[in-house]
Amino acid sequence: MALIVHKYGGTSMGSTDRIKNVAKRVAKWHDAGHQIVVVPSAMSGETNRLIGLAKEIMDQPDPRELDMIASTGEQVSVGLLSMALLAIGKQAVSYAGWQVAIKTDSAFTKARIQSIDDEKVKRDLDAGKIVIITGFQGVDEHDNIATLGRGGSDTSAVAIAAAMKASECLIFTDVDGVYTTDPRVVSEARRLKTITFEEMLELASLGSKVLQTRSVEFAGNYRVPTRVLSSLTDPMLPLEIEANSGTLISFEEDTNMEQAVISGIAFNRDEAKITVLGVPDRPGVAYHILGPVADANIEVDMIIQNQSVDGKTDFTFTVSRGEYTRALAVLEANRESLGAASITGDAKVSKLSVVGVGMRSHVGVASQMFRTLSEEGINIMMISTSEIKISVLIDEKYMELAVRALHKAFELEKA
Amino acid sequence: MALIVHKYGGTSMGSTDRIKNVAKRVAKWHDAGHQIVVVPSAMSGETNRLIGLAKEIMDQPDPRELDMIASTGEQVSVGLLSMALLAIGKQAVSYAGWQVAIKTDSAFTKARIQSIDDEKVKRDLDAGKIVIITGFQGVDEHDNIATLGRGGSDTSAVAIAAAMKASECLIFTDVDGVYTTDPRVVSEARRLKTITFEEMLELASLGSKVLQTRSVEFAGNYRVPTRVLSSLTDPMLPLEIEANSGTLISFEEDTNMEQAVISGIAFNRDEAKITVLGVPDRPGVAYHILGPVADANIEVDMIIQNQSVDGKTDFTFTVSRGEYTRALAVLEANRESLGAASITGDAKVSKLSVVGVGMRSHVGVASQMFRTLSEEGINIMMISTSEIKISVLIDEKYMELAVRALHKAFELEKA
Repeated sequence: MALIVHKYGGTSMGSTDRIKNVAKRVAKWHDAGHQIVVVPSAMSGETNRLIGLAKEIMDQPDPRELDMIASTGEQVSVGLLSMALLAIGKQAVSYAGWQVAIKTDSAFTKARIQSIDDEKVKRDLDAGKIVIITGFQGVDEHDNIATLGRGGSDTSAVAIAAAMKASECLIFTDVDGVYTTDPRVVSEARRLKTITFEEMLELASLGSKVLQTRSVEFAGNYRVPTRVLSSLTDPMLPLEIEANSGTLISFEEDTNMEQAVISGIAFNRDEAKITVLGVPDRPGVAYHILGPVADANIEVDMIIQNQSVDGKTDFTFTVSRGEYTRALAVLEANRESLGAASITGDAKVSKLSVVGVGMRSHVGVASQMFRTLSEEGINIMMISTSEIKISVLIDEKYMELAVRALHKAFELEKA
Repeated sequence: MALIVHKYGGTSMGSTDRIKNVAKRVAKWHDAGHQIVVVPSAMSGETNRLIGLAKEIMDQPDPRELDMIASTGEQVSVGLLSMALLAIGKQAVSYAGWQVAIKTDSAFTKARIQSIDDEKVKRDLDAGKIVIITGFQGVDEHDNIATLGRGGSDTSAVAIAAAMKASECLIFTDVDGVYTTDPRVVSEARRLKTITFEEMLELASLGSKVLQTRSVEFAGNYRVPTRVLSSLTDPMLPLEIEANSGTLISFEEDTNMEQAVISGIAFNRDEAKITVLGVPDRPGVAYHILGPVADANIEVDMIIQNQSVDGKTDFTFTVSRGEYTRALAVLEANRESLGAASITGDAKVSKLSVVGVGMRSHVGVASQMFRTLSEEGINIMMISTSEIKISVLIDEKYMELAVRALHKAFELEKA
């Protein structure tokens, strides 16, 4: 008997019929003798509906009040799922985050979990009940409801699994695992049976939508074995098949050994590049350029500063495409005080990254990547690297070609 | 400066535009120097939508889980109204019942308020904030959410007004007050400027939908001056006009003096009558007939036992029309053990009541009522009386005729 946390996304909870299917799946795991905690998302579309109502009232909704409203979607879900379990003869009980209690800081709409009091949940599990807990939310020290931001239910599930020392956290979603790259771009893309949490962290932060970045951080920090698997399969599929499906995020050095040098290729079309030309190369130049951008609450991703020539340098960085115009305006307003010659930009760029823990011990990954892109005639605009990742910025029109060429060059279609 | 509680119904909160109107009205009262607590209902249709989802999962939804779900409608409303106030430059904060806290018993879906801790609310009011609190709900001693049943937001508003010793509780609704009878039946029906809480209690329990019965009980027990008025008028109407509109539920003996003998005529089409014929007249007969009916959770309204003849008696009672078939079946199953000759019934009956504190000191109200009905050729099937009410059961086809005749006979159209 093990304690296992299940998390179901909005699509899995999208209708009362689907909720009944979730209940069947949960009951099957419980029948096998496991203790089960379930963290469901709001029914698909519900969070958007609630935020839409808020925006009809206020263009920039007050964060505390928005959390009051947005958190109700999950509350409805836990009640419905608990009923669906009761209806098939299971004992079940639902809790909102504050009832558990899941304590967060007061950063409304992007709160962080600080602690989880699992006493009530343990008592219910020991009494044979299935416990359903709202994802996405908790309460701060003043009993205000605070949500964790989009995709926060993943984080809730992993955090609950960590607090309760669960054997595994199963993230049931509408994809059947993590792929070497997006199968819509490369038809040969292959599902990974395991991935290290560091690789998953890079992939999540690079825009792969399978898991929220923070949930992967949690899984890593607390070493919670986390599996991404599909909720769209037959809920009465044998338990052994289901328990070994999807992609397991692992922490075992052993599993790394079997892995290829590169695990996957991520890409992000939501990029724009801005260059400040001919700025005097004196100490503090990066701060003077990026300070006003940060003050405007614009997040910066890749950053490059060129070798200075004649005491002048060029400075380039990327922002998300939606912030492009605003970032340009901020810099233009500061151009004179920066002493910059001019400011240019390009919103038609994409970022492409190869990720793999194997590259730690294999030289030549970067050169293989650059050669492949060169052979396809694709120019690299910017490069940034981490220990297990190489990212390049390229013209967006070459993005799909580049992904396919690299997928083939690194033989990712082979197990 | 006074502390005033506003309550807004589902129609008043029915869209984001209407919520903005509610905010304007609340702000106007606040601008006049009052401290304001607002208790809004869920947006119209929302509670039904939530209960509908629950019923798709479970024919008889689990009460605790149903409350978890149904309570979210009001939580969305308080967040939206708080934002609408913030958007027009007011300070505002919303609370769910558990955050205040409003403590209830554990009778899910029909809980009763036990206590209200108003410390947090007082602090906010003193800081100049408008406080918005969810109606319809509280928490039990184990932190489970419990709702007060349909119309429960009226009760929440009056209970909060009582706990905070508010000067007045204003129930804004889609009618502009309490009428001598339903204006759809009698066009001469007149709005009452005041009504005693005892009369209001009788009217509410007789099926007048203006206020939930329990809210009137609360208003009476704690002597909360409560006014029913319209939210559909111009929200910027001068405060003095609004503050004197609608119908005030009063507790002053003085105001009774001005009142007519009869204040209003209520009627209820949702009635059915059942007669147990030829049952042996021995001690406990009422208990033996009504015990099984109560065990089946069927509520009984009027009850008559005839004078016994030859040791046999007839026993008649009424139930709501939806329970008619089930109540007949319960009795038929017990007919032999009751020793009853037969069981008959009639589902096409209506109850009609005249209500007025004036009848305490005026004889002849009953005879006036019976004469009027007799002159119209309307047969009376059952009669029941209280100190300030006379109810009769008649054939439903005469109901509107009877209401019009009595309205005229008691001169209710005259102020």
